Amino acid sequence: MNDILEQSLLFDFYGELLTSRQKEIYELYLNDDLSLGEIADTAGISRQGVHDMIKRSSHTLQNYEKKLHLVARFVTIKKQINTLNELVADGPGSPQKIEQIKDISNQILGEL
Amino acid sequence: MNDILEQSLLFDFYGELLTSRQKEIYELYLNDDLSLGEIADTAGISRQGVHDMIKRSSHTLQNYEKKLHLVARFVTIKKQINTLNELVADGPGSPQKIEQIKDISNQILGEL
Repeated sequence: MNDILEQSLLFDFYGELLTSRQKEIYELYLNDDLSLGEIADTAGISRQGVHDMIKRSSHTLQNYEKKLHLVARFVTIKKQINTLNELVADGPGSPQKIEQIKDISNQILGEL
Repeated sequence: MNDILEQSLLFDFYGELLTSRQKEIYELYLNDDLSLGEIADTAGISRQGVHDMIKRSSHTLQNYEKKLHLVARFVTIKKQINTLNELVADGPGSPQKIEQIKDISNQILGEL
């Protein structure tokens, strides 16, 4: 997984556990793709302050994932659902295809 | 969802965010199905202490869910996968069945 996608997922899952100030800054960084200088101007703090806050927020989000592994669980399930989706995408199912679908849906249930 | 199942899911998702002492007590209560008196004897604290700790832990877990809604997300997805599983369980698929499977897997992807 690339860094930006991983940061987005971590923020999507655990963002609500940041303080509202941390969330605000992190969102400008992640979703609005602003530079540290631009965020500093918007938020009225120093560039160094923005840098530190983003670093600390990122660390907090990673710590939640280290404990809970919920992003990893979701990524695994998403991959399996994608496979399943591809299997059913191209027309009616042969018995073998139905078997594959059954296997995957059972695997997913085992992970939930 | 019944209370015990909900408590188990909350603990499964967010238990690692409790202190190790809270986790220990909550596990005795939830998984080992001990009475407050029995937990008090095992843990070497008062019955009232056990009661307070369980109440506080339960409150903490519920607060994480209020912020993150991850149990609710998982429960929804689990229901959909179960439906999907039932659809493929009884033999090869008609075109209509394949359409239903496609719909559900797309719904799930929309939620991940």
